[in-house]
Amino acid sequence: MTDFLPSYVQGEWWTPAAPLGSLSLPKGTDVRDASTGEIITRVSTEGLDLTGALEYARTTGHASLAELTFHQRALLLKQFALALTERKDELYAISARTGATKGDSWVDIDGGIGVLFSYSGKGRRELPNSRVYVDGPVEPLSKDGSFLGRHVYTTLPGVAVQINAFNFPVWGSLEKLAPAFLAGMPTVVKPATPTGYLTEAMVRILVESGLLPAGSLQLVSGSVPDLFDHLRLGDLVGFTGSASTAEALRRHPAVQTGGVRFTAETDSINASVLGTDAVAGTPEFDAYVRQLVAEMTSKAGQKCTAIRRAIVPAAAADDVIEAVRTRIAEKTVLGDPRAEGVTMGPLASVAQRDEVLRQVRKLQDAGGRVVVGSADAPSVRQADGSTGPAPDGAFVAPLLLRFDDASAEAVHDVEAFGPVSSLLTYATTAEAADLVARGGGSLVTSIATHDIAQAVELATRIAPFNGRMLLLDRDDARSSTGHGSPLPGLVHGGPGRAGGSEELGGIRAVLHHMQRTAVQGSPEMLTALTGVWHAGAATSAGDRHPFRKSLAELRIGDQIASGAREVTLDDIETFAHFTGDTFYAHMDEESAAANPFFPGRVAHGYLLVSWAAGLFVDPEPGPVLANYGLENLRFITPVSPGDSIRVELTAKQITPRETDEYGEVRWDAVIRNQRQEIVATYDVLTLVSKDPVAA
Amino acid sequence: MTDFLPSYVQGEWWTPAAPLGSLSLPKGTDVRDASTGEIITRVSTEGLDLTGALEYARTTGHASLAELTFHQRALLLKQFALALTERKDELYAISARTGATKGDSWVDIDGGIGVLFSYSGKGRRELPNSRVYVDGPVEPLSKDGSFLGRHVYTTLPGVAVQINAFNFPVWGSLEKLAPAFLAGMPTVVKPATPTGYLTEAMVRILVESGLLPAGSLQLVSGSVPDLFDHLRLGDLVGFTGSASTAEALRRHPAVQTGGVRFTAETDSINASVLGTDAVAGTPEFDAYVRQLVAEMTSKAGQKCTAIRRAIVPAAAADDVIEAVRTRIAEKTVLGDPRAEGVTMGPLASVAQRDEVLRQVRKLQDAGGRVVVGSADAPSVRQADGSTGPAPDGAFVAPLLLRFDDASAEAVHDVEAFGPVSSLLTYATTAEAADLVARGGGSLVTSIATHDIAQAVELATRIAPFNGRMLLLDRDDARSSTGHGSPLPGLVHGGPGRAGGSEELGGIRAVLHHMQRTAVQGSPEMLTALTGVWHAGAATSAGDRHPFRKSLAELRIGDQIASGAREVTLDDIETFAHFTGDTFYAHMDEESAAANPFFPGRVAHGYLLVSWAAGLFVDPEPGPVLANYGLENLRFITPVSPGDSIRVELTAKQITPRETDEYGEVRWDAVIRNQRQEIVATYDVLTLVSKDPVAA
Repeated sequence: MTDFLPSYVQGEWWTPAAPLGSLSLPKGTDVRDASTGEIITRVSTEGLDLTGALEYARTTGHASLAELTFHQRALLLKQFALALTERKDELYAISARTGATKGDSWVDIDGGIGVLFSYSGKGRRELPNSRVYVDGPVEPLSKDGSFLGRHVYTTLPGVAVQINAFNFPVWGSLEKLAPAFLAGMPTVVKPATPTGYLTEAMVRILVESGLLPAGSLQLVSGSVPDLFDHLRLGDLVGFTGSASTAEALRRHPAVQTGGVRFTAETDSINASVLGTDAVAGTPEFDAYVRQLVAEMTSKAGQKCTAIRRAIVPAAAADDVIEAVRTRIAEKTVLGDPRAEGVTMGPLASVAQRDEVLRQVRKLQDAGGRVVVGSADAPSVRQADGSTGPAPDGAFVAPLLLRFDDASAEAVHDVEAFGPVSSLLTYATTAEAADLVARGGGSLVTSIATHDIAQAVELATRIAPFNGRMLLLDRDDARSSTGHGSPLPGLVHGGPGRAGGSEELGGIRAVLHHMQRTAVQGSPEMLTALTGVWHAGAATSAGDRHPFRKSLAELRIGDQIASGAREVTLDDIETFAHFTGDTFYAHMDEESAAANPFFPGRVAHGYLLVSWAAGLFVDPEPGPVLANYGLENLRFITPVSPGDSIRVELTAKQITPRETDEYGEVRWDAVIRNQRQEIVATYDVLTLVSKDPVAA
Repeated sequence: MTDFLPSYVQGEWWTPAAPLGSLSLPKGTDVRDASTGEIITRVSTEGLDLTGALEYARTTGHASLAELTFHQRALLLKQFALALTERKDELYAISARTGATKGDSWVDIDGGIGVLFSYSGKGRRELPNSRVYVDGPVEPLSKDGSFLGRHVYTTLPGVAVQINAFNFPVWGSLEKLAPAFLAGMPTVVKPATPTGYLTEAMVRILVESGLLPAGSLQLVSGSVPDLFDHLRLGDLVGFTGSASTAEALRRHPAVQTGGVRFTAETDSINASVLGTDAVAGTPEFDAYVRQLVAEMTSKAGQKCTAIRRAIVPAAAADDVIEAVRTRIAEKTVLGDPRAEGVTMGPLASVAQRDEVLRQVRKLQDAGGRVVVGSADAPSVRQADGSTGPAPDGAFVAPLLLRFDDASAEAVHDVEAFGPVSSLLTYATTAEAADLVARGGGSLVTSIATHDIAQAVELATRIAPFNGRMLLLDRDDARSSTGHGSPLPGLVHGGPGRAGGSEELGGIRAVLHHMQRTAVQGSPEMLTALTGVWHAGAATSAGDRHPFRKSLAELRIGDQIASGAREVTLDDIETFAHFTGDTFYAHMDEESAAANPFFPGRVAHGYLLVSWAAGLFVDPEPGPVLANYGLENLRFITPVSPGDSIRVELTAKQITPRETDEYGEVRWDAVIRNQRQEIVATYDVLTLVSKDPVAA
């Protein structure tokens, strides 16, 4: 009998056993090869301790992740990526059984690994090396500065449950794991049954790498119908799949009233609009057709982001159809992905094939005429190189339908989750926008035009109905990553029917796994809570200039308060002639006085910050290695000849780098004049050695 | 017969009329004075064209708001605030009838006006003067820079429906109107029946001011049970009220599958924790008790943010009870708000009073002992100054209950929405945190302690269960705005039971009324769509130096590309001695070369940006008035003696000010060396006159 596909729960691999007093194992569900129908494995969760797994995540998982900072978690993501890269051939071999061609597998496997790399980089560049994320500026709440507001994000205290679709068994898990892990939330993966064996192989590599913090990742192979009964406030579910399943899950009391954060990324009726300028022969026409065929055939059209509606000017319809037909004929070889030359594989299962054909019939009943391809069982290239019918394989040929009535409801609502698109025509830009909107909320819409005015009008109108938009023209056709590809840095999730998911988009998805809280308190308290110095909190002059302290010795609040230095007219002239900046406000008393902001000639702002550096810097070699930048500089009060300035420089935020011998220190700089008025405020960014001895 | 309270729909005031063929008006619901029971008005929506009102918002409302930029809308908010301020005495007079004391009315009326002022300021400071909001940095998507990603927010295309609670008829409407209006979404206000006459008076002032863009604000006085049947994707509902009503509304298909954005701000079982250090006699103890009594008595405890659970160290319980009792006895005068000296008014209605007393009995049944006050009908100060029972008034005296068993379920779940709090005790900080969390998600928790370690531990543990936290100690007790006060700059809305609302928090609430969309395209397309120049998009040297162009003449992409200037060792030394910045990396070849980032002595970063200004500045008086700041400066490649630098300065974003004769121009600055390597990048911020002639 076929082996059960293991789950990985509570730190151990688990498969169903015969219940006490019985000799027979549970039956389970058979899982088959997409091309041949051969049984690969079977799945069952009978006897699996789901409650135990969830509690293990909430306790052990949280504890082990809480030991790590954002940067430490980010580094682990990179190591996960390296471990998977090393063994990715194993994954490719398994992936072929799901019906994926090499190209499809690349999107799934290398794409998934790419998400890990990307989040590893973003986590270290865009998050602090701590556990609390500070959001937005300080909100002053009292005139005397003793009461401030700030927003922080803290890790949700529960478990992040992934319920994934069958189409991307690796990428789908990793694109959810990366932000959850970075946020410090343990993950339970529940892959879709038809391709869960590939997810299992991926999880196995991670487990065997020994890199996973205890409880940070668990895998449940098989269905868990009562899952939501075990969820509570602080838990989170990221669902990918059909809109109808999402709807049923969302209705559960755990979501409706229990505070479980639920988002869905569902099949949406995405559109691709051809601009009126993009007639046959233009680069935009070609790019449009290439992209449309790519979206129909890659992953056999089994992508939530695939183009379901090709919306083209009425005059271009025949040209588009002809070009699609030609390109499919020239470029597409349908067959077993293990056969040489095959460019398009089967659907994930025979059940899925039958479902797609059912939806195609619905589209036909609603007025869709097949204009490219055929819904009949196709002849395909077999693994042995021969060509013929494959009744046990889940094959469907690419199909383009044409609707004469663009307002037919089915074309905006029925999804055939396979290599199927429908063509609609429009007359005006407003009409094209309305057609896009009729999808009821999409993951992505692309627009192919080189006409900036049409692009902006269309994009502005349809943006509220889309999670992502791609503007395709001759300038980016070559470098475009394509309509159907979610990218780590861009939000993946659209409104309405698309499910409102909060995936990817860089740090945005990390924050989705955290709770935002407004905090009010004294500067001292906010400093202690956030790890970022707030103006008004204690400072320390210490026993040494803070530039003499290594990263390990330096403390938030360490400060150098400089002496005063007078600015003379000579200084201003010297600086003007040295720099070439002879702007009249520095050089011409009369014109300067006529300026609404200046009392007369004033010092250059750059003179002030340059002098401030002269006032606060400690020149000898030491732990401070470089000033790598400056942020949020604002000139508040002009400095006239005869004024004097002084500067206070306070260590505001310390960010050790995990893999370097130094880290970043952000200093709060305030320049004041002799009347104690604030002249300028800014942040100075430096690199500081971890080593007490100078580099 | 009492007059009907009007609604304001489709640009007209509307009251129910007798149906065709009938002489009798609809019956409607009577609304009574909270202190005296006198009938004030009645409400009915019988015959009101709700569909028409919603469509009017979606068409006329959207069109009139779309004509305005963020800044223009922000300015209108200020004018609304001024119009209301001018006539606020009328509102105060009406407010007294709802049971509100002068202090309560101040929170509602002046608090509401304050939100308008605050959003007006934030809108102009923190939003561009356009209609699309750009979120986050550019995401490079191709190596050659021809394909970029960016996130934008565009206005939701539907109507923002407010369903408000009875407790803050003015503030509750304005705090939702302000961000919706700023976002460009038309609003329909549906106030709660018991106090809707005060909202009506506020709306009337706005209508009579003549300031409202057509369709931007409508008012429905009375119930609209089938409201959700008329909502669709692009619409948004902001609900304030009970958790159970929120639950029922959330289940509607318009929300579950229709894509209507629904958030609720519901009664939550907020907590206030006393630190173990804060024993009687400490400033924190006093601040805690003052705040607790204030939250019990202000607005007669009818605040979603009121303290329902006072969580104190076991050892402090008796002291807290005694202090609360004393303070209430000394400070609280219960009665008709129109009577002299009254500090606490009735609840909003007799029905509400009976409901609160029912909940108090539930708390008592669950083990709560009344330790301060009494649930019996109180004797109160009447409008004429006499004291006695007021059976037709909705009076309840402040009540503190004590639970010996802190784990009793009712105390974490039952809300008596009146002057009622319960006292619980804890032993350890972890236990206190667990008790807070048992509220299932709260709007706010306050912590009174001067012990930074306990504050940080508690705050970190409870943050994921709270929308807001207040850290109270001797440093901010005087300046604190109080546990119960949502503020425009801080998010108002908590997880779980608190309803997950997205109110206030400055621009965050504006964005809640917009759709975030990731956009991919060429620099040219992204520039056109966002109004912000993207590197790689077209630039123009034009016929004049861009500093000679007024704000009206200047275009995004206008550029000055400077000549090159060589940096010599002499220059570095001159700059070092002039500024005093003799950091070794500029002065000492050997030490500089030992630094991991420098090849040897290098030019000061401040020298480079100072020289760059000298290279790009046009010195004669002209439209450019001042450089007011600089952002995102990063030094990329060090500059050695003998290198030369040049700078490109490109107009990136133009922000005219509505009320000044100038606006802000953000310039993209890139310094390169003779090898075309990027030396530094930053944004230069200038003020530029609208006037073609120099100021």
